[in-house]
Amino acid sequence: MSTKKSLGAKTIAFPTPAWAVATYDSEGKPNVMTVAWGGICCSKPPCVAVSLRKATYTYEAISARQSFTVNIPSASQVMAVDFFGVNSGRKIDKFAATGLTPVKSELVDAPFIDEFPLVLECRVLHTLEIGLHTQFVGEIIDVKADESLITDSGLDMEAIRPFAFIPENREYRVIGESLGKAFSIGREQKDS
Amino acid sequence: MSTKKSLGAKTIAFPTPAWAVATYDSEGKPNVMTVAWGGICCSKPPCVAVSLRKATYTYEAISARQSFTVNIPSASQVMAVDFFGVNSGRKIDKFAATGLTPVKSELVDAPFIDEFPLVLECRVLHTLEIGLHTQFVGEIIDVKADESLITDSGLDMEAIRPFAFIPENREYRVIGESLGKAFSIGREQKDS
Repeated sequence: MSTKKSLGAKTIAFPTPAWAVATYDSEGKPNVMTVAWGGICCSKPPCVAVSLRKATYTYEAISARQSFTVNIPSASQVMAVDFFGVNSGRKIDKFAATGLTPVKSELVDAPFIDEFPLVLECRVLHTLEIGLHTQFVGEIIDVKADESLITDSGLDMEAIRPFAFIPENREYRVIGESLGKAFSIGREQKDS
Repeated sequence: MSTKKSLGAKTIAFPTPAWAVATYDSEGKPNVMTVAWGGICCSKPPCVAVSLRKATYTYEAISARQSFTVNIPSASQVMAVDFFGVNSGRKIDKFAATGLTPVKSELVDAPFIDEFPLVLECRVLHTLEIGLHTQFVGEIIDVKADESLITDSGLDMEAIRPFAFIPENREYRVIGESLGKAFSIGREQKDS
């Protein structure tokens, strides 16, 4: 008999991302919004999913151009990420307002944010209507990182300091210290 | 001109989850595997997506029963989560091996892990074939949490201490301190 308490049918999960999804609008103006409903969804081809409401300006842009970039921020960029989430590209130029730099991707029809440490350039492979949100599955055509962040054992997480969005608490939290190597620490558990 | 360096078409993104997805097999035996390719994908109805390879035992179970639970672990449970990821339910009983308790959900045809702090009970709404991975979109029928973790301002993140999987580095990292309130800190950015 479990002692767990019901919270109802809600979107609570940890971690969820806080990714800046960048696009060009119909006139070629760069725009960016924050997406927490998303994640990697396939290894081959490498794909990432992002879900958007139809009412967003970015929904129109992705539908028209079938391209977007996922820009992954550092903790120091959390204010810009929240700004991207509370304003609409219909009304303001979010790049101009934040002073961040849109760079035209050479691979997909979307810009990426030059100042963000990690960028995924994506082309839409599937569009799934779910309900309030539409899910775009993007094939990851390339991943780009600041060269200073690339190490022999992966990416320099202490330098990047990525963060997560925590839905129920409506806050951002930093990704902190390592708890151990994956596909490794659990191998010792078997006979315990 | 960007100075970013190409890493190729790869599944790199931060954060990705390390969720324990629990199911019943064809004989009703509870099983659990670790999923890093997933995320919330719709607010109404509330939905979460998890992607699995067809070769997994859990793929068969979800296909047959159209139900699963997402069990979100604390940092103290990272060894069990990694264990779930490196072993197959075809060969061993992962609940028996870890001493964790499968509780039969009253809402969906799947068990949840009693010791994990947060549980999402899901019924499959869509199945999307992408490539190596198949994505199951599950409607979240209920979320359950340990009562001691529920506070007036959300869930007690210091007590839960959830963690993320970091793909390129193949490690787990804890979700740490707050960087500020979402839909709030960015409002001050506008005129900067």
